[in-house]
Amino acid sequence: MENFEDLGFSKVDYAREERQGFPEVIYGEGKAVEHIEPIMGKLIERHGKVMVTRVAKEKAEILLERFPEAVYDSTSRILLYGKPVLNFGGEVMVLAAGTSDLFVAEEAAITAEWMGCKVSRLYDVGVAGIDRLLAYRDDITKASVLIVVAGMEGALASVVGGLVQRPVIAVPTSVGYGTHFEGITPLLAMMSSCASGMSVVNIDNGFGAAYQAAMIMKLVSEGVHHETSVS
Amino acid sequence: MENFEDLGFSKVDYAREERQGFPEVIYGEGKAVEHIEPIMGKLIERHGKVMVTRVAKEKAEILLERFPEAVYDSTSRILLYGKPVLNFGGEVMVLAAGTSDLFVAEEAAITAEWMGCKVSRLYDVGVAGIDRLLAYRDDITKASVLIVVAGMEGALASVVGGLVQRPVIAVPTSVGYGTHFEGITPLLAMMSSCASGMSVVNIDNGFGAAYQAAMIMKLVSEGVHHETSVS
Amino acid sequence: MENFEDLGFSKVDYAREERQGFPEVIYGEGKAVEHIEPIMGKLIERHGKVMVTRVAKEKAEILLERFPEAVYDSTSRILLYGKPVLNFGGEVMVLAAGTSDLFVAEEAAITAEWMGCKVSRLYDVGVAGIDRLLAYRDDITKASVLIVVAGMEGALASVVGGLVQRPVIAVPTSVGYGTHFEGITPLLAMMSSCASGMSVVNIDNGFGAAYQAAMIMKLVSEGVHHETSVS
Amino acid sequence: MENFEDLGFSKVDYAREERQGFPEVIYGEGKAVEHIEPIMGKLIERHGKVMVTRVAKEKAEILLERFPEAVYDSTSRILLYGKPVLNFGGEVMVLAAGTSDLFVAEEAAITAEWMGCKVSRLYDVGVAGIDRLLAYRDDITKASVLIVVAGMEGALASVVGGLVQRPVIAVPTSVGYGTHFEGITPLLAMMSSCASGMSVVNIDNGFGAAYQAAMIMKLVSEGVHHETSVS
Amino acid sequence: MENFEDLGFSKVDYAREERQGFPEVIYGEGKAVEHIEPIMGKLIERHGKVMVTRVAKEKAEILLERFPEAVYDSTSRILLYGKPVLNFGGEVMVLAAGTSDLFVAEEAAITAEWMGCKVSRLYDVGVAGIDRLLAYRDDITKASVLIVVAGMEGALASVVGGLVQRPVIAVPTSVGYGTHFEGITPLLAMMSSCASGMSVVNIDNGFGAAYQAAMIMKLVSEGVHHETSVS
Amino acid sequence: MENFEDLGFSKVDYAREERQGFPEVIYGEGKAVEHIEPIMGKLIERHGKVMVTRVAKEKAEILLERFPEAVYDSTSRILLYGKPVLNFGGEVMVLAAGTSDLFVAEEAAITAEWMGCKVSRLYDVGVAGIDRLLAYRDDITKASVLIVVAGMEGALASVVGGLVQRPVIAVPTSVGYGTHFEGITPLLAMMSSCASGMSVVNIDNGFGAAYQAAMIMKLVSEGVHHETSVS
Amino acid sequence: MENFEDLGFSKVDYAREERQGFPEVIYGEGKAVEHIEPIMGKLIERHGKVMVTRVAKEKAEILLERFPEAVYDSTSRILLYGKPVLNFGGEVMVLAAGTSDLFVAEEAAITAEWMGCKVSRLYDVGVAGIDRLLAYRDDITKASVLIVVAGMEGALASVVGGLVQRPVIAVPTSVGYGTHFEGITPLLAMMSSCASGMSVVNIDNGFGAAYQAAMIMKLVSEGVHHETSVS
Amino acid sequence: MENFEDLGFSKVDYAREERQGFPEVIYGEGKAVEHIEPIMGKLIERHGKVMVTRVAKEKAEILLERFPEAVYDSTSRILLYGKPVLNFGGEVMVLAAGTSDLFVAEEAAITAEWMGCKVSRLYDVGVAGIDRLLAYRDDITKASVLIVVAGMEGALASVVGGLVQRPVIAVPTSVGYGTHFEGITPLLAMMSSCASGMSVVNIDNGFGAAYQAAMIMKLVSEGVHHETSVS
Repeated sequence: MENFEDLGFSKVDYAREERQGFPEVIYGEGKAVEHIEPIMGKLIERHGKVMVTRVAKEKAEILLERFPEAVYDSTSRILLYGKPVLNFGGEVMVLAAGTSDLFVAEEAAITAEWMGCKVSRLYDVGVAGIDRLLAYRDDITKASVLIVVAGMEGALASVVGGLVQRPVIAVPTSVGYGTHFEGITPLLAMMSSCASGMSVVNIDNGFGAAYQAAMIMKLVSEGVHHETSVS
Repeated sequence: MENFEDLGFSKVDYAREERQGFPEVIYGEGKAVEHIEPIMGKLIERHGKVMVTRVAKEKAEILLERFPEAVYDSTSRILLYGKPVLNFGGEVMVLAAGTSDLFVAEEAAITAEWMGCKVSRLYDVGVAGIDRLLAYRDDITKASVLIVVAGMEGALASVVGGLVQRPVIAVPTSVGYGTHFEGITPLLAMMSSCASGMSVVNIDNGFGAAYQAAMIMKLVSEGVHHETSVS
Repeated sequence: MENFEDLGFSKVDYAREERQGFPEVIYGEGKAVEHIEPIMGKLIERHGKVMVTRVAKEKAEILLERFPEAVYDSTSRILLYGKPVLNFGGEVMVLAAGTSDLFVAEEAAITAEWMGCKVSRLYDVGVAGIDRLLAYRDDITKASVLIVVAGMEGALASVVGGLVQRPVIAVPTSVGYGTHFEGITPLLAMMSSCASGMSVVNIDNGFGAAYQAAMIMKLVSEGVHHETSVS
Repeated sequence: MENFEDLGFSKVDYAREERQGFPEVIYGEGKAVEHIEPIMGKLIERHGKVMVTRVAKEKAEILLERFPEAVYDSTSRILLYGKPVLNFGGEVMVLAAGTSDLFVAEEAAITAEWMGCKVSRLYDVGVAGIDRLLAYRDDITKASVLIVVAGMEGALASVVGGLVQRPVIAVPTSVGYGTHFEGITPLLAMMSSCASGMSVVNIDNGFGAAYQAAMIMKLVSEGVHHETSVS
Repeated sequence: MENFEDLGFSKVDYAREERQGFPEVIYGEGKAVEHIEPIMGKLIERHGKVMVTRVAKEKAEILLERFPEAVYDSTSRILLYGKPVLNFGGEVMVLAAGTSDLFVAEEAAITAEWMGCKVSRLYDVGVAGIDRLLAYRDDITKASVLIVVAGMEGALASVVGGLVQRPVIAVPTSVGYGTHFEGITPLLAMMSSCASGMSVVNIDNGFGAAYQAAMIMKLVSEGVHHETSVS
Repeated sequence: MENFEDLGFSKVDYAREERQGFPEVIYGEGKAVEHIEPIMGKLIERHGKVMVTRVAKEKAEILLERFPEAVYDSTSRILLYGKPVLNFGGEVMVLAAGTSDLFVAEEAAITAEWMGCKVSRLYDVGVAGIDRLLAYRDDITKASVLIVVAGMEGALASVVGGLVQRPVIAVPTSVGYGTHFEGITPLLAMMSSCASGMSVVNIDNGFGAAYQAAMIMKLVSEGVHHETSVS
Repeated sequence: MENFEDLGFSKVDYAREERQGFPEVIYGEGKAVEHIEPIMGKLIERHGKVMVTRVAKEKAEILLERFPEAVYDSTSRILLYGKPVLNFGGEVMVLAAGTSDLFVAEEAAITAEWMGCKVSRLYDVGVAGIDRLLAYRDDITKASVLIVVAGMEGALASVVGGLVQRPVIAVPTSVGYGTHFEGITPLLAMMSSCASGMSVVNIDNGFGAAYQAAMIMKLVSEGVHHETSVS
Repeated sequence: MENFEDLGFSKVDYAREERQGFPEVIYGEGKAVEHIEPIMGKLIERHGKVMVTRVAKEKAEILLERFPEAVYDSTSRILLYGKPVLNFGGEVMVLAAGTSDLFVAEEAAITAEWMGCKVSRLYDVGVAGIDRLLAYRDDITKASVLIVVAGMEGALASVVGGLVQRPVIAVPTSVGYGTHFEGITPLLAMMSSCASGMSVVNIDNGFGAAYQAAMIMKLVSEGVHHETSVS
């Protein structure tokens, strides 16, 4: 049973990289510092580096004392131990509709970089002033994969989705009020989008969008050689 | 009690025009032909004309036998007795995102014309192909009031709302599937729009949007002369 | 690229006035003081004045130190730099159903004034004591545009909507409890209103209602001269 | 075990009158004719009369063949065997906002009459034309109990609730579209009403409202003589 | 305009007693002490007494300094100035399913007493131990009006509703977790109850239930003498 | 790959009995007759018998032609090929609140019998007439497992749950209207029940409840001998 | 009236053990220390031991002063006075999908032990790394009853449900974010599970699941001897 | 204006292929045959082929008369004019949980083939019998992109998502009942999945999933050469 290690409260998944392409990342929300620390320790031991997402500032400060080489980004609330290495060609573009959406956009951008992607950022280009977006139309069409982060009504995703021939991953954010329902409205809107070829991840899930983007870039980088035996 | 007439099942509102600016319109949905016919009769007697909305084809056929001068539009399902008269300057523009939204767009357009407005129509300009919309940017900015009809995620309203300095009234439609929830999603999205100065009416309520647009054109036409005594 | 200025976290929209009729307003909710301050600076530089909405008291105090000429209204939580100028004839009336709805009513009233409108206020006229409302019936019918602010079940909007021939913009508020769902219930009720010619904005969105009211008054003031080429 | 009779698929409740004040009424919806008929038979045997609610026309026709003395009302879809007897003084007033709400209003009115009440009807007095309602203000304030039936946004209940010192029972109806959600919106609105002393029953539940109204009239008729031993 | 007094932020409703049978009660939630105090002052001036509901402890302490004769009940959060007078015969019974529901049950009980009713209390009789409820069956059937306060699934209301021939007013409470949705579940359950003659008020609305109960007792006390002219 | 057989559109699960204790049952809803027939054939071949649930009458008639030995029950819509065998001691009691709930109650009862249980039925014992239920209190407390089937507000489950020391499985039904939401309300109510030791299955899922009841009776019948190595 | 004792705010249920198989357990949430303490006292007097669930740390500390022999578990927030006794053979297995679900899993495990069961724990075996779960397949199939605790999408329950022939009780947890809706999503998913023979309890309701598991083990232990007289 | 052609009711988008990588596809749902036919004609003229999705059988029969070379697939309801050409290496695998999900799975599979992908199908591998899925583990890990189609609780997506290092696109289906809410439950579950790197499309949207899969395969095929100028 060498694929995982049982810490009692947790079974650390060493087989993750082989199985899923990237080493395990720790989801920090709702985990106590006493739980995060040993898992970090085990993963650093095994992989030499680790990323922890959704780390509140107070927890980060304690963990930084224990792992002084680590770095904490207060916008995305990501804690990194070790440096990202650029593994893949092409470019993941992260677009954000408004200034208030940056905490999600940065979670996506830093995650994609951590997983080996080159990342470009295009922020505050919401559709209420569409000329700001169209000013970057050339850059947008050149990106390999696009992550569109938007709160409010999330219309940016539809407009971008109609401009490109590359996969668009939409991330609704919890930024809004009233009928926005903490992100439900842009999520539903992105799901119902009139633009083809767009898929959606959970509210504020910049990490998940970046994870899929990195999987795509990995596939591009490795190419396609295998075939299944299923008809 | 001369302001309304009591038919037992209905109290016909003769004071509507003085009070609300336009004669009573009959909402046909859920009313039996036996109810619609006498109310039509009373209103024609009083005003010389009448509009009935949401009339199913089968009902329309019966009513057309009784009122052969009436005209029925099968897209909007509106029955008109009498002709609209152009009363107001300026132009109400009705935009529709997709071909399937026309039944609502036409309800809005015909209602606005009935109430005295000049109407221009711009259909199938959904944001997934934004160049189709932008090709008409000049016309859009010239309209006095804009009614934006959209199903799916309703993003057209936000984009139009960001392009003009005139009032935009958004109408979500029941066209879509799955997470679209028969119009709830575009309604919520329009409510949460990042564009300023936009208001929203009920799902498929082309009539209501046109009614408000006509009230605005009437106000423009009549100008502002009164002042209240409230501070 | 002179239409906007890129501050990194934000692209300040200088073309807003030409495109949308009024200079950009800063939505303060969820923006850090470090973000609001430079945008305020840029907009004051360009327009000589600026309005910031939804500014919490603590943030306002810091910003007032930096911009001592600014004024903060604690009911509406609006921060103003510069004085409003009366640009349009006619009158926007703001009605509020209850004392607890004033924070939204004042957001609407101050915004409309800021944008150039004359504003009258009629507060605490909820329908449970309908005589209070009817005592002002003459004033209500004289207003050019009416903004109806109501929490609870929002019935005031329907009653007012049935009394006037001018556009009514309804604003549901988050004031209520239980089945009120923080404003969803009056929003749905206003959407389903039996009164014609009423449109609705997001919960507590006094700003949006006033923005549309001001657009209408601007249209009245400028009149209608252009025509589109669309049929 | 004489209080009920076991028909296998049903246990006919003979003790209902003693326990709840009125004999059992058959709720016809979702019951097959083969189930309704024997229960009707048993109840007629015991009480000499019976009321069946929510009987579809096709079922009614079959039952009328079996019980030729019965009478069917197609608006309320109620089947009556036997005649109502006026047992209580005072008056239950049934108000309906619109013509389309009559199927519920009549269910309430006929039920209240069946249970011994005098009933007055005031129909098509929705708040969008409030003068129609206010024309009957004297009558409204004289009623002993008021049942307010309304679809759309249900605002009539709040207005009536604010005019009287008698109990108001509000009945939301499924009449409306879009954000009306088949009656959920007026139900929530009535629940959140700013008028005091109003209670609400299920959507389209004219029967339930009338049942409570009759219980109140019965209490008035019998007076109050007992006291509990609970402190 | 002697029926109300305009304090600017509020129009104090002096006609309430004549119109609705009882003097205005102040709903304290969401009102600042600076708003409550002058309204209290005006109402004491007029009526010699006043009740304020939903007063947080901190606010109550300030108000008690200003009105030292007032009394504050910390369970129901009601502030009373003046003493209730027993006006009506018969008995309003308040039942509560669990210990945690007492804050609502006491709001109902104290309100009913304030409005002139005799009140009996039967607490902690939830249906999971039905023998506790049935032990009081005699008392329950003797009450004139029953207010059933229940959180969780609210089943107590259905069981009580099936035991009596008097009006039952059900009050769902916000006591529960998970699928209880802060009171929505018992509210929906009470609405869908299989027991006839029950009506429902908003979540935690002990005040509203007691208000209707008092209206019923007032009607019983005054009897029925008037008749409307409506057919 | 002998554990299942691949029919292309379906992989028939022969290992189900060993793995889950009972042979595969066919869920007929949404399956075409052309799909059901070959799967039935394969399972009869393997096990000598088969049960198909949720078979519409029209489909059943076609299948009965193909499998003339099969029997169809029109209340539960179950098609049986082969006879049930009584395998387990004790008794599963199925309770139903109302006559309209029988289609679910019978699905549960027939399934439990098919799986080897002795079943007793107690129907039409809803809590609005609690004496009907309490008349059977002795029988209820003797049952080994209780399946409580209820629509409307589902209160029967809570009352039964408080009377017994045996596992209660609650099945909400789609029988009701308005706020009942086709079964959501009793489901939520059962989930929030104040009675301990009750679990819930999906709306109308009589099959699932019976499946779990049979698993419990099987466990009782086989006793407990194994122990895991997990601490 | 010896079956319960009336403390005014509470009726302590001494008949619970005879009626429901286990002595009353105190649900600590929302109860004040002043309420919990006397009920604990009464139950200790009667049964010599007591369990209190959902006790916040601050309350626990006060209660521990009063009952120094009691023990508090901070993960499950359970307070125990007295020791559990192993009464039943077989084994209840508690599985948890993630580390963050432990607070619910431990509530279930400790409750089951308290009620007399042997409990095995299998934690952090969520389906995203299915090999961790399958590594314990033998142990899983040997358990008598399985309690599956899972947040996020709750898929663990379906997978486990398909592996065993013993009853599975699923417990959704409030661990997740965005579309997880504080546990609604895994609850709905578990309800809609494709695995047969699984039932579900309320969100985070580890206690309820354990209660039913213990009832099952009690039934196994006592065997089945009685039969009802109902057909 | 050569990029689209205005048919009045529709603006045919000829620029789609250049802008989005693939020619326009006609969404047949809600479009009349009279609308579909001319658009088909225009697109065949331009591209020599066309795909129409969601075509009801009756419409398909009429269109097949007009376009006899077209082919209609009744499972997916897709109408094809022209043959797909294999353009990309690698393999898109479509997995379906149950037999009833095939209508969506085939929409995905045929669309992906139409757009140039090699497709493998793995059907009826729902997690309730996980051995059926694991029997194909090798094939699953070799696929380039995986589309997982599942109704009920949608757990298949999470399990597959945890087995592979390639992008997984999850498609919830409307197959289920009760708490399944016509696909909302698997959609929410997939959104909340514990597996990383998965994204989700609208309910039953096999087309959208295939579109994104094809975009990924196109990107793999073309490689990454461009870079944006955005930092």
